[in-house]
Amino acid sequence: MPRVSTDQLAARRRQILDGARSCFADHGYEGATVRRLEQYTGLSRGAIFHYFRDKEALFLALAEQDATRMADVVAEQGLVQVMRDLLDSARTPGSGPDGDAGDRSWLGTRLEVSRRLRTDPEFRARWQAHSGALTAATRARLERQAAAGALRDDVPVPVLAQYLELVLEGLVSHLAMGLPAGDLDAVLDVVENGVRATSHTR
Amino acid sequence: MPRVSTDQLAARRRQILDGARSCFADHGYEGATVRRLEQYTGLSRGAIFHYFRDKEALFLALAEQDATRMADVVAEQGLVQVMRDLLDSARTPGSGPDGDAGDRSWLGTRLEVSRRLRTDPEFRARWQAHSGALTAATRARLERQAAAGALRDDVPVPVLAQYLELVLEGLVSHLAMGLPAGDLDAVLDVVENGVRATSHTR
Repeated sequence: MPRVSTDQLAARRRQILDGARSCFADHGYEGATVRRLEQYTGLSRGAIFHYFRDKEALFLALAEQDATRMADVVAEQGLVQVMRDLLDSARTPGSGPDGDAGDRSWLGTRLEVSRRLRTDPEFRARWQAHSGALTAATRARLERQAAAGALRDDVPVPVLAQYLELVLEGLVSHLAMGLPAGDLDAVLDVVENGVRATSHTR
Repeated sequence: MPRVSTDQLAARRRQILDGARSCFADHGYEGATVRRLEQYTGLSRGAIFHYFRDKEALFLALAEQDATRMADVVAEQGLVQVMRDLLDSARTPGSGPDGDAGDRSWLGTRLEVSRRLRTDPEFRARWQAHSGALTAATRARLERQAAAGALRDDVPVPVLAQYLELVLEGLVSHLAMGLPAGDLDAVLDVVENGVRATSHTR
């Protein structure tokens, strides 16, 4: 009998992640039971937990997937573009990467785990490790921009990076709660200009 | 028999709110059962729900209490000062207004209701009504600053107000998740200077 190829393993892993993302979006973290995860992924619990140790590991893998995707956009276009993309996808429900209910519901799931993050230091450490790709990409891009003279030079790069990440957290929270997008494009313009060299006196 | 005075009614209402805040902070929204609310307030369910229709009304009253307190600070010192105060209270656990576990746990409770906000438009409308005092105070202060020439004049005041509120949402989310305060003071300096007239070219 032929062994399962690496491609097949990766495809199976992707199938689980896609199904789990929709399941979390539709039912939240607590509501994503093993039975529902089976339904959404089309796989048995045995298969699912062969790839992921437990529901927490599945959730963190999705957070890591997000961070990696966002880090790709950051490297090319910056963190503000990530925010603009989030804003767009919140405006067009159903446009989620997997054709599911959109990013908004998934963002809500992320907020739901806030209690866990707050009360469980180990979980928080794992969460931070999984979202580290985004922080690294943001800093790297800002460093490149600073070297090119495109960045304001009166504030250290790590502070600017944390500033952008804080705005991203605000946007995630805002959209996840279903609050109106309103003037947020103009707000993001303020944020973007706020880190650039040209909009500030020397 | 003497009738209960208005002062006594207000004191009783405050007693319920103080107890409920600690209960939500310790047990989260779902975990704040009627039995626990009785324990934390020292009152019977009959007394509690004489003052507040249900747990949701109690939660929203606490949100309104926050918004009103913050609005007072905003009127005097601006929304960035509200953020600095949040940062301080997150750094000193146990310094919550009621000597409870601090603001952080309560902020976490707010994030926990994100799912409810997302999926229940009526609840969202009530939430927004209860937090409206903060938005109104923020706009009013910015209008005063604009009239005094202290504000950048290249961005409309409503956009600046939404910008500050978005950063506040990010800070609430960040602190509620127990993430490190890090360089956030310096980040708030960037935010504060970003709305002022002096830090921008004309």
